[in-house]
Amino acid sequence: MITVLCGGVGAARLLGLLQREVADLNYCAVVNVGDDLVLHGLTICPDLDTITYTLANLNNEVTGWGLTDETWRVNRELAELGGEAWFQLGDRDLATHLYRTERLHQGATKTEVASELARHHGVTLPILPVSNDAVATFLETDIGELSFQEYFVKHRHAVPVSKVTFRGAEVAVPTAESLTAIQNATRVLIAPSNPVLSIAPILAIPGISEALRARRNTIAAVSPLIGGRALKGPADHLMTELGFEASSYGVAAYYGELVGHWFIDEVDASQASRIEELGASVTVLPTIMTQPESASALAQGIGTWLNS
Amino acid sequence: MITVLCGGVGAARLLGLLQREVADLNYCAVVNVGDDLVLHGLTICPDLDTITYTLANLNNEVTGWGLTDETWRVNRELAELGGEAWFQLGDRDLATHLYRTERLHQGATKTEVASELARHHGVTLPILPVSNDAVATFLETDIGELSFQEYFVKHRHAVPVSKVTFRGAEVAVPTAESLTAIQNATRVLIAPSNPVLSIAPILAIPGISEALRARRNTIAAVSPLIGGRALKGPADHLMTELGFEASSYGVAAYYGELVGHWFIDEVDASQASRIEELGASVTVLPTIMTQPESASALAQGIGTWLNS
Repeated sequence: MITVLCGGVGAARLLGLLQREVADLNYCAVVNVGDDLVLHGLTICPDLDTITYTLANLNNEVTGWGLTDETWRVNRELAELGGEAWFQLGDRDLATHLYRTERLHQGATKTEVASELARHHGVTLPILPVSNDAVATFLETDIGELSFQEYFVKHRHAVPVSKVTFRGAEVAVPTAESLTAIQNATRVLIAPSNPVLSIAPILAIPGISEALRARRNTIAAVSPLIGGRALKGPADHLMTELGFEASSYGVAAYYGELVGHWFIDEVDASQASRIEELGASVTVLPTIMTQPESASALAQGIGTWLNS
Repeated sequence: MITVLCGGVGAARLLGLLQREVADLNYCAVVNVGDDLVLHGLTICPDLDTITYTLANLNNEVTGWGLTDETWRVNRELAELGGEAWFQLGDRDLATHLYRTERLHQGATKTEVASELARHHGVTLPILPVSNDAVATFLETDIGELSFQEYFVKHRHAVPVSKVTFRGAEVAVPTAESLTAIQNATRVLIAPSNPVLSIAPILAIPGISEALRARRNTIAAVSPLIGGRALKGPADHLMTELGFEASSYGVAAYYGELVGHWFIDEVDASQASRIEELGASVTVLPTIMTQPESASALAQGIGTWLNS
């Protein structure tokens, strides 16, 4: 089994791609919960939902997030009432949040709810929140401390960040399912998700890093930066703001000794030797998953490593 | 000022009627909160919302509850997910619940939220929850103890009830606004709401009955039963189940010495003398508010008493 450490969109695309193109292997997703929030009383898990929706082919290609065939009646009405409508909740999406919140009130865990939602949408790949405990990413910025969604959605990740903290992480417990998935995996893959905002909060939970440290040579990562830029989101300028180079090398330096093998884009080929100096091997290949040929090449490259 | 003790639909109709037809007086609604519930993490206040929606002319005439021009996308999706969809939440209505829940999370009181929602919908009549504290109506029935909404909505108030309790009422505090509204009112009117389920939970809050007992001769009630039947809801069979006569006389006996004057329907004229024996005066008049002529006669009758 292959376990993939996941944030949202980039991870969801990678999982879908591998399932289609390297179909002889079994995958399992261990997913960030640092973006989770309680808004209007509802427990919302953006990364878990993005992965479920994408693997169910229900992701909204127009917005890049949320569900396809979505409507916005509730959020429009909420905006008219003067409510907190900046976090746009689609009507279909709201049903997920209502369902999850009610199940949590009934005593179900986040893991159980994620499994129920996946099953409902016909997704068989295990989608495992890294922890059932509350972990909340907060960012110190030029305009004060912001919660993840305030930073990401309300301020469109456009304010400089000086520090990132994962509140609750130090006392959070990884789920048995996610820890087992890491321990039993023949290979662990770190998705091209935001290293600071999506993967770091997974690694911050006690027990996760320890489980990974024992097995560097079976851990690979796909660089989320191409030519120093993130395809989506603030990964590039966050690296700079936190004192790292905004490049595939910078991301490799950020992960340090955790990762034994790197997949970096062809445009970053010149960085391969610097990454190798960090003690990792490197595969240079196309990494843009939104282009079919490039995606296929990426899948084949990763597949070769997974089966090696 | 005239203060009206209110449940949902019947009270909302009466308030609207009096505002239109006895327009020279100022009204204030003190509203039951025993029907309130937390569902899917959302705080829902059916009586407060029904009154607000009705006074704003936004009430749904087709369903008899909720908002006009309503859609049901979220609830349909929730049902598909296998969620608790028996309490039908309209998309427009959901915006109210999201707004309220978020404001309560921010530290606002139920009173403040009710006022904000009323203002948003252009309603000037003060709509005052009797308490900001949690009061929950529970019913002992043949199939076990049920919450109000389980009894009323899920089981369509079709199971026999042996006892009604208002959990939390004994430690709830009436709001200063609602207590003042009762104390300062020249007249208090008890709406033709369900005596057991809508008015009793108001009276159960310490301080309310005491404030009313001092002033029986300024308190009137409109009987919710006509010819022994409720126009809507289970008031009639609940009276019987709890050992009272299902009639205007039975309701008068249920309220006892609280009410000094009764408005009962013409079809119940023969009960007037029995009610007078309870120490109350009686006006016999048409009381069906859904028929314009009858409603007008009711309003004029009440108006005469209010101005007397």
